[in-house]
Amino acid sequence: MPDQSAVSVASASHPSAARRSTPHPPACADDPSAPHPAWLPDSAFAAVGSRRVLTAGEGLLVDTVRLEIAQATAAFSGTVADVPHDDTQPDLVLALLDHAPQTVADVASALREAGPLGEEGFVLARRAGTTVVLATHGAGLLAGMFHVVRLGESAFSADITPERHAPAHALRKLDHWDNIDVHPVMGQVERGYSGGSVFYADGGLRTDLSRVRGYARLLAASGINRVTINNVNVHASEALLLTRRLADVAALADVFRPYGIRTHLAVSFAAPILLGGMSTADPHDSTVASWWEQVTRTVHAAVPDFGGYVVKADSEGQPGPFSYGRDHADGANMLARALAPYGGVVHWRAFVYDNHQDWRDRSTDRARAAYDHFAPLDGRFDDNVVVQVKLGPIDFQVREPVSPVLAAMPRTRLAVELQVTQEYTGQQKHVCYLAPQWSEVMGFRPWGQDGPAVSDITTGAPSPDARRSVRDPHAGGGLAAVSNVGMDQFWTGHPLAQANLYAVGRLAWDPSLTPSAILAEWSALTFGADDPVVASTVQTMLTGSRDTYEAYTAPLGVGFMVHPGHHYGPGIDGYEYTPWGTYHFADRDGVGVDRTRASGTGYTGQYPQPWAAIYEDLDQCPDELLLFFHHVPYTHVLRSGSTVIQHIYDTHFSGVEQVDAMARSWSGLAGLVAPDVYDRVQERLEEQQRCAREWRDQVNTYFFRKSGVPDERGRQIF
Amino acid sequence: MPDQSAVSVASASHPSAARRSTPHPPACADDPSAPHPAWLPDSAFAAVGSRRVLTAGEGLLVDTVRLEIAQATAAFSGTVADVPHDDTQPDLVLALLDHAPQTVADVASALREAGPLGEEGFVLARRAGTTVVLATHGAGLLAGMFHVVRLGESAFSADITPERHAPAHALRKLDHWDNIDVHPVMGQVERGYSGGSVFYADGGLRTDLSRVRGYARLLAASGINRVTINNVNVHASEALLLTRRLADVAALADVFRPYGIRTHLAVSFAAPILLGGMSTADPHDSTVASWWEQVTRTVHAAVPDFGGYVVKADSEGQPGPFSYGRDHADGANMLARALAPYGGVVHWRAFVYDNHQDWRDRSTDRARAAYDHFAPLDGRFDDNVVVQVKLGPIDFQVREPVSPVLAAMPRTRLAVELQVTQEYTGQQKHVCYLAPQWSEVMGFRPWGQDGPAVSDITTGAPSPDARRSVRDPHAGGGLAAVSNVGMDQFWTGHPLAQANLYAVGRLAWDPSLTPSAILAEWSALTFGADDPVVASTVQTMLTGSRDTYEAYTAPLGVGFMVHPGHHYGPGIDGYEYTPWGTYHFADRDGVGVDRTRASGTGYTGQYPQPWAAIYEDLDQCPDELLLFFHHVPYTHVLRSGSTVIQHIYDTHFSGVEQVDAMARSWSGLAGLVAPDVYDRVQERLEEQQRCAREWRDQVNTYFFRKSGVPDERGRQIF
Repeated sequence: MPDQSAVSVASASHPSAARRSTPHPPACADDPSAPHPAWLPDSAFAAVGSRRVLTAGEGLLVDTVRLEIAQATAAFSGTVADVPHDDTQPDLVLALLDHAPQTVADVASALREAGPLGEEGFVLARRAGTTVVLATHGAGLLAGMFHVVRLGESAFSADITPERHAPAHALRKLDHWDNIDVHPVMGQVERGYSGGSVFYADGGLRTDLSRVRGYARLLAASGINRVTINNVNVHASEALLLTRRLADVAALADVFRPYGIRTHLAVSFAAPILLGGMSTADPHDSTVASWWEQVTRTVHAAVPDFGGYVVKADSEGQPGPFSYGRDHADGANMLARALAPYGGVVHWRAFVYDNHQDWRDRSTDRARAAYDHFAPLDGRFDDNVVVQVKLGPIDFQVREPVSPVLAAMPRTRLAVELQVTQEYTGQQKHVCYLAPQWSEVMGFRPWGQDGPAVSDITTGAPSPDARRSVRDPHAGGGLAAVSNVGMDQFWTGHPLAQANLYAVGRLAWDPSLTPSAILAEWSALTFGADDPVVASTVQTMLTGSRDTYEAYTAPLGVGFMVHPGHHYGPGIDGYEYTPWGTYHFADRDGVGVDRTRASGTGYTGQYPQPWAAIYEDLDQCPDELLLFFHHVPYTHVLRSGSTVIQHIYDTHFSGVEQVDAMARSWSGLAGLVAPDVYDRVQERLEEQQRCAREWRDQVNTYFFRKSGVPDERGRQIF
Repeated sequence: MPDQSAVSVASASHPSAARRSTPHPPACADDPSAPHPAWLPDSAFAAVGSRRVLTAGEGLLVDTVRLEIAQATAAFSGTVADVPHDDTQPDLVLALLDHAPQTVADVASALREAGPLGEEGFVLARRAGTTVVLATHGAGLLAGMFHVVRLGESAFSADITPERHAPAHALRKLDHWDNIDVHPVMGQVERGYSGGSVFYADGGLRTDLSRVRGYARLLAASGINRVTINNVNVHASEALLLTRRLADVAALADVFRPYGIRTHLAVSFAAPILLGGMSTADPHDSTVASWWEQVTRTVHAAVPDFGGYVVKADSEGQPGPFSYGRDHADGANMLARALAPYGGVVHWRAFVYDNHQDWRDRSTDRARAAYDHFAPLDGRFDDNVVVQVKLGPIDFQVREPVSPVLAAMPRTRLAVELQVTQEYTGQQKHVCYLAPQWSEVMGFRPWGQDGPAVSDITTGAPSPDARRSVRDPHAGGGLAAVSNVGMDQFWTGHPLAQANLYAVGRLAWDPSLTPSAILAEWSALTFGADDPVVASTVQTMLTGSRDTYEAYTAPLGVGFMVHPGHHYGPGIDGYEYTPWGTYHFADRDGVGVDRTRASGTGYTGQYPQPWAAIYEDLDQCPDELLLFFHHVPYTHVLRSGSTVIQHIYDTHFSGVEQVDAMARSWSGLAGLVAPDVYDRVQERLEEQQRCAREWRDQVNTYFFRKSGVPDERGRQIF
């Protein structure tokens, strides 16, 4: 029952004292162990914090809203109250619909008329000097509050006709590839470039979880509502999170919960054997299913809002249903049925392929694998299974075509999986703003310009395509993304890589946002909205950074020319003779992989029209994907008019020039951004410059040695 | 004072009971933890053990001789005594000269007339039904006993005119690259392929050193007299062996000492800083020199026969005198002066080069580095410094020219360093008998056929070359070799790799022994001398195995086409764009490194004539080193009549065929050798076959893609 009197009211006090008492990580520059505030520095709350704020409602997340507002108003001399004053009109009302004061009845009725908002939606309006956020649930109110923070002063100027806001994706999940134990090769965070795990240390859960709380807050402000707390490659210690270490899961869930984030667990499909002492993990064995039901019941008891399981099965050495002659649907559904009573979801990864391929065998094509495995299973997955599909068919390269699986399973809930951690895109030593790539994927229309986009598939929006019959407009599988954070002072190693973490949450909430708009938001929050030089420099540096990275690394969609194992820096032939299925087939005459139906692996046939035809046709295939789909002579003339070999030279020279320009731009910010941020970015840019030169020279030399074709412009090739 | 009565006499008893009581590792087949007896199975002692043996002399090593004879006679129904019986004539007399019984006075006087034998020499004779071994020291007597064991029955048949035996090299050292702690990347034994360290486990010295004793015995029987007990890359825990862990050194020295082996320690040049808390390790700083003197005094007190220090300085990240503006002679001499009072030696490695080379810079040549660093220092090193020179200029490739440093320092004691552990030669998964390579190096005559051989330089033999002025005929630096043993059941991973360990000791003792003769000895000792099928199969398999390995791996001396890091399996471009200075410069036209004076790095000029001219001249350069010295078109015709490209194809196809033939040969030994040995070799041969195919296909494909030249014989290239 609502009880407004139970809510405490904070009054304004000395700002610096208030800052010292904040429970989230302070922006205290003289404490080197304090993490950087990222997109939530105190200053981001200036507009809200200086207002008279009225809050109304109750519940855990409303308490979080009140705490945030209390801190902000304490810091910036505003006020917060939970009952209207007769004498002063509030500047901002943040209220649950059921508790909305009479003064905002007009907005409330506008909300009611428009139909259900969902748990996370909110309505924003401004009229008569008051900005109003109404929501039916605490999660929506929290989202609305962070929306107002993001708007800053503009939330308090012109009138706003009531606007409905709700997330496009119900499931907006960040996956952590964190290990409890430090893996001898992969480190504590697999593919992590930001120090140790924020969750685990010294063989167990960290004792101080204040950084996790700060992290939860950042994620909530960006749009994430689910977090998987361990690596999909589930090792021995981490497997125990499901049972003996369940208290650790509960402790983390307790930290995430006040910010509206539900906790998921990556589990080993072999858990019944590893943990249950059983002799099988066969999904058709009823004792196995019972074991999962019992374990899941226990998990739910400890974590009432438990999100579900994430599974990498029968891939890269992980166990799965294949061992028992079952398929992915059998495996996923068994887990789904254990979770169903509690509203849990199984995220089953489609990243399945033969990692013991013979490089001599050109008929096997790793790009085909996910489709070949999963498309035939469409319609077989339970409603609470989400098939989690990497954005491209290979593995998070800087340029890949969109995975055809996303268009191949109309009767399945599909999530697109993105990689925020920059495994193949510079490992947070290089500036590489990935939102443009993600936006491209979300906006890709597999059936052509008149058909639905990938975001329609992942959101579960009704589709104009007759073949699609989504059961429920909200049945999309959402978005999953591999986190890039760690114990690094700046969370992400490279301060500018925070933009990727921010962007993934924002795109998950609203995939129609442009990368540029997200960047502007992030930059204003992080660096302040006042300095146009900082804003425009950061925009310039980041906007084209993915194209720049692509320019000096792997040309024309060829991919995987990376150093084997750690995947940093060039290794042109690094994967050429390996079992990993990642080849470029460069010889003295040409380069690229023939994936056509006419003469290659037939991968182009996994796309619907028009893309099947476009990719198949050498003359129509987009330049940037040419070598992904075709093997061509070095002298092949691209649609751009350049030859392949000259394109390689040109982009590698210009890529380095772009990095140099980026470094020059940054040096213009000396004194304009915090010294620690400046220095860290500066240091990383120097490494990026060094590494970009290495890429340029190795790629150019490699292809010059192979082709014998000199650079038209006579530049130095070693 | 001699006291013959103090020596115990063992009488014959039941052989198996005697075997159970042996202190060295028994050949007990049903105990899987018992190491294989290698070249000292009980059966090797049959001839000696069935004789009436008279021993005379005293001292630690004479006791070892008596213990060995006691065990042998116990097992094979012979007798041993230390006083002559009046009634029976002994079959074998093993005596120190001072204690020789009157009955062998003739041999004793022959010995005295011929001049000093040295500590390790002995005289062997047989006349009137008695075989006689006389020595002036226990070490010589022990060596003589093992010599008789090696001769077997032939030591007891025809008369033998007194023969003098003495080791050609005074210093015959085996280096262990063992770590106490398991290194996260390199493992416990750096470049070890035989399991954990025989010395260390669980962060300290092993509690059970019985395997070390067995190892010491094997080494003594092969000819080794020095062992370095830790990695030349000295990490934190291992650095402490010099001080806090000195008791571990003493304990190992106690185990090696009864077999005539002195213990050496690899030390960090920065030890005064790391261990001494000093601010410098400058060799010209008198407090640094004093620190080393004091530490060395303590070492000597704990290990009275301490051998000395082994140092890798200013190379691959190890600290050295360069940090203080000093040179290698300054550094080495400081340590040498600390050791001199105790007869210790400094082994200073010449393996120094720039490992941060830029692959774009063709003027820097790693092959030149050791000569460039060390040749100018000739004459500057103290008498108890040995400069330890890798056999080739790069790094233990299957084919390299002999290091020119060996001919460049006539006024310096030089040791040649060999690698028994097969880092680049199949890692004990492949059969690769290395004695042919070592013999080639020992027999190489840098000044042409009329000049001295490398073995003359390392033994310190008087040289016919006028420029050489060795101060002492025994002043050579000897031989050093990196061990290949570990806790593996067969010591060396691959049972046939034991032949390399045996051979290095024998070549150290006598570099004039042929690889084939050594192989026959090893095979007879290991597998027994009775079965001609086993002997001839093993001879056939091993004799050409190095040529076979060369055939299917890196062609024509080009080297280093290995997988980076672990160095196993092909990686044709693996090191091509790295800072390690190991390139092949293959392009679409040709391959190889131009190291000529005329147009290349000038490395050929580091050799004396005639080799400087031979290597410089494309027409004279030996085929097997062509690509080491020259960059040539693929169509270049070799001295063999084949083109370079066709040679690559031919050798790679034939190399695999040779491995297949090897495997077929081995399968003929089923039932003829012990099942565990058979199975292990069989299993490794399968891996060698797999890997050889991988080498063949990758190398052939690589060069076909580059050259575009098809195989003349139309075989399959992928």
